[in-house]
Amino acid sequence: MKFVRFGEPGQENPGVLDAKGRVRDLTGILPDIAGAILGNLPDIDPEGLPLIEGQPRLGPPVAGVGKFIGIGLNYSDHAAEAGMKPPNEPIVFMKATSSITGPNDSVSLPRGSEKSDWEVELGVVIGKPAKYVSEAQALDHVAGYCIVNDVSERSFQIERSGQWTKGKSCDTFGPIGPWLVTPDEVGNPQALDLSLDLNGVRVQTGNTRAMIFTVAQIISHLSEMMSLQPGDVIATGTPPGVGMGMTPPRFLTDGDIMTLEIEGLGRQQQSVTLD
Amino acid sequence: MKFVRFGEPGQENPGVLDAKGRVRDLTGILPDIAGAILGNLPDIDPEGLPLIEGQPRLGPPVAGVGKFIGIGLNYSDHAAEAGMKPPNEPIVFMKATSSITGPNDSVSLPRGSEKSDWEVELGVVIGKPAKYVSEAQALDHVAGYCIVNDVSERSFQIERSGQWTKGKSCDTFGPIGPWLVTPDEVGNPQALDLSLDLNGVRVQTGNTRAMIFTVAQIISHLSEMMSLQPGDVIATGTPPGVGMGMTPPRFLTDGDIMTLEIEGLGRQQQSVTLD
Repeated sequence: MKFVRFGEPGQENPGVLDAKGRVRDLTGILPDIAGAILGNLPDIDPEGLPLIEGQPRLGPPVAGVGKFIGIGLNYSDHAAEAGMKPPNEPIVFMKATSSITGPNDSVSLPRGSEKSDWEVELGVVIGKPAKYVSEAQALDHVAGYCIVNDVSERSFQIERSGQWTKGKSCDTFGPIGPWLVTPDEVGNPQALDLSLDLNGVRVQTGNTRAMIFTVAQIISHLSEMMSLQPGDVIATGTPPGVGMGMTPPRFLTDGDIMTLEIEGLGRQQQSVTLD
Repeated sequence: MKFVRFGEPGQENPGVLDAKGRVRDLTGILPDIAGAILGNLPDIDPEGLPLIEGQPRLGPPVAGVGKFIGIGLNYSDHAAEAGMKPPNEPIVFMKATSSITGPNDSVSLPRGSEKSDWEVELGVVIGKPAKYVSEAQALDHVAGYCIVNDVSERSFQIERSGQWTKGKSCDTFGPIGPWLVTPDEVGNPQALDLSLDLNGVRVQTGNTRAMIFTVAQIISHLSEMMSLQPGDVIATGTPPGVGMGMTPPRFLTDGDIMTLEIEGLGRQQQSVTLD
């Protein structure tokens, strides 16, 4: 199943895609794609639900995100690109939940930004509470997967007395979606192609099999330090090809277009504006 | 005014203290101490409200916290104690909102913890949305102040491949309260004595005038990087006397009692247990 939330920002309704990829309305069946419902998403026949005409705006496919957790340097080739050695354990940072936007909303560069960068990432949405869970059981706590653009202002992240969260939390720096895809449709989360195009030119290419720490390892690791709740979102790191790693570095400017794709999880596209 | 939230965890009701320090019930007047209400807290005569008998458990005095932001090394003498030079700009990290507990709830050490530490801090609760606010206008966005114990597992924070959030986010590592005290009662937030006793022995002593970055400077700085929303909580850094800085270091163990006080903001006390 592919769940969506459609409508104006802050007023989205829950929906689900039908066989033709059209949005069907889940209003009245679910209050929202959020909270405990994520641990027990309905297996429903979309064809019997009201069809939403046209192309509604999509919001983030999960609401009420309590924690927006990022994993740093989780692809060995990206770590090399960043000039850092692969970590011994997952590097964990937080993105402010106020950075979350819809998959195709604009990304607005904060005032003073000169080094804003893109990062296509596999997003994991927690469905059931997780605390001290083993790697073997970790994926039982997953509601589904989605694309995340972990937009990052490198100057704020690295040159402003720390921690990384400074450059990860700006408003609109967390596009999520378009869909929340349930694990049965995704299959093995460690075999997904992912890519990001900047103005139509491929800049990031990767496959989740190159992760240093798997989704299961990340969930198990996090759950030893904090409980994970339904609706928490984990961005699991980015493959090579970020602007910071280019020679010379290439950062986002007004009018740039980012297009992100992950196998089975759809496509998101943002235009870049100035705040 | 001193606002509280009383009742069992997750089921707290809003209240306010009367002239004798007793809890009066705000149920029916406010849905909760949360969200937009924080920007317009009622100036109410508590004496006319229903009296809550006995000593109810107090929860965190603000609900629906979207961001729980910490400031690192914000007292020059604490920075020296930690062996680090004062930062050029505020060091910003996030604590998971799932770490938040009531002011007198137990602090539970996560499995494997050997270096859990205390940090008494002035907490600032945002009342009105803040984005690109000047230092001069920053305090207009404050709903009130409270005590925060920024409990920190130093091994998780520093020795586990980073970032600090790993050691700051454990469940129960964010006691907040007992009260949300409105700015008119607090007066100058840069002139408050604060202290922490461990098992009845004073270990932390400080005054908020020793902050490297003032509350107003912190809010202004954060608002350049992310919007702040009503209910966001900022823990503004800790004075000297943490366990990590002792010779030899002294970390929390089962049965320890932490007692925190800030001038005008009351007192919180936690017993330490093992998870």
